[in-house]
Amino acid sequence: MSNPNRNLKITLAYDGTRFVGWQRQAAGESVQGHLEGAVARLEGAEVTAHGAGRTDAGVHALAQVASVHVTFHHDPGTVLRALNASLPPDIRVTGVEDVPTEFHARFAARAKRYRYQIANLAVASPFTRAYAWHVPEPLDRAIMREAAATLVGTHDFAAFQSTGTDVHTTVRTLTRSEWREEPELLVYEVEGDGFLRHMVRAIVGTLVEVGRGWRSPGQVVALLDGAPRGEAGPTAPAHGLALARVEY
Amino acid sequence: MSNPNRNLKITLAYDGTRFVGWQRQAAGESVQGHLEGAVARLEGAEVTAHGAGRTDAGVHALAQVASVHVTFHHDPGTVLRALNASLPPDIRVTGVEDVPTEFHARFAARAKRYRYQIANLAVASPFTRAYAWHVPEPLDRAIMREAAATLVGTHDFAAFQSTGTDVHTTVRTLTRSEWREEPELLVYEVEGDGFLRHMVRAIVGTLVEVGRGWRSPGQVVALLDGAPRGEAGPTAPAHGLALARVEY
Repeated sequence: MSNPNRNLKITLAYDGTRFVGWQRQAAGESVQGHLEGAVARLEGAEVTAHGAGRTDAGVHALAQVASVHVTFHHDPGTVLRALNASLPPDIRVTGVEDVPTEFHARFAARAKRYRYQIANLAVASPFTRAYAWHVPEPLDRAIMREAAATLVGTHDFAAFQSTGTDVHTTVRTLTRSEWREEPELLVYEVEGDGFLRHMVRAIVGTLVEVGRGWRSPGQVVALLDGAPRGEAGPTAPAHGLALARVEY
Repeated sequence: MSNPNRNLKITLAYDGTRFVGWQRQAAGESVQGHLEGAVARLEGAEVTAHGAGRTDAGVHALAQVASVHVTFHHDPGTVLRALNASLPPDIRVTGVEDVPTEFHARFAARAKRYRYQIANLAVASPFTRAYAWHVPEPLDRAIMREAAATLVGTHDFAAFQSTGTDVHTTVRTLTRSEWREEPELLVYEVEGDGFLRHMVRAIVGTLVEVGRGWRSPGQVVALLDGAPRGEAGPTAPAHGLALARVEY
């Protein structure tokens, strides 16, 4: 009765506050570790879950996607309820579906969307303190929008990549890069075919410097020809970031 | 240089999750205790803060109001910054103003508004788990709105009061009682001249029973002639409730 070709696509939301990140680490609790543990309890054997995006420690997810090969036969609704019954409340499975056996959550992803929340208020709300970067100084939102728009397109984002990482190319294509106003929040939404390590947080750190008047939109454009990391702004804090959507 | 008549009105927001409530208790951390400690550090002497509403353990505040007599001369903006520098991040002072010496945050309150959040979804978001009651079963929202509206006006709310409390009268006047839909949340907003102990949570527990089809709006009306507590629904969990506004 085993079904060696069954592959599940699992969508999950998590509050990243207390985790070492998506990926299993030598020490600390990871989202991947919790999900694999929950699936293994159904499977009766160890499993490996592949995540679409390797969110860092403290980074949240509204809709992370993982794929995992299993042999059990429970229907997707039963699997969803069983996983949520065994996962901690800061990780919730929001969807389970059968996918072709060759589907891989990371390699099959065509695009990802991230959200970065800033609490740009004199006094930050206690309710967003774990989910938004508190920037009390006034920010010029119009010029931040202008600078954000210059990032759309295919560019060399080497200036926005954490040093010490090893990738084939630092060229990526962004299809969306904009600031939106929500109640008590300033939200950066960015969508692209792929992201370098710490790329969204480095972009936000740089755009906030634009908003503070420390650099111009033109100086942001100048970073897009492969400028070194040191020329862009600092990496914004992890807790403002959330993986919002993965497209296949 | 002392100013024995100075009275400050302090507005504060807090995440009630880890507190024993507004009021100082024999054991555990209270919001009142933290606020009094922070003001005392400026005053150089003990102070007493009077809160507009005694929120219970786990109940939040978007805008609690406290009054406290002090003798120091720092301007309100300096007081606000000094208090926030010494308070924990789950308590934030959002306003400080000078008020007449006879002002008392509780006795002067003309009306209060509370919000109660329900996550009426099969799977609750990890981001609202500390701020909304998770009710996964379907609720008939139209009939809940109808039942909520019947509570507006002057009624005997004895059926919605926790047993063992001692008040002169259980008659209260509600000027607003309605359900609103927000993204991923069903929100009850209620405004009145005063509230009995656990009254909002008992109302919500009762209205959710209406939404589940267990009692009719007419049966809610029948509770308003001073029916005993046992005839109304259960007390909804504390963590969905927030004191939203106090009017003077």
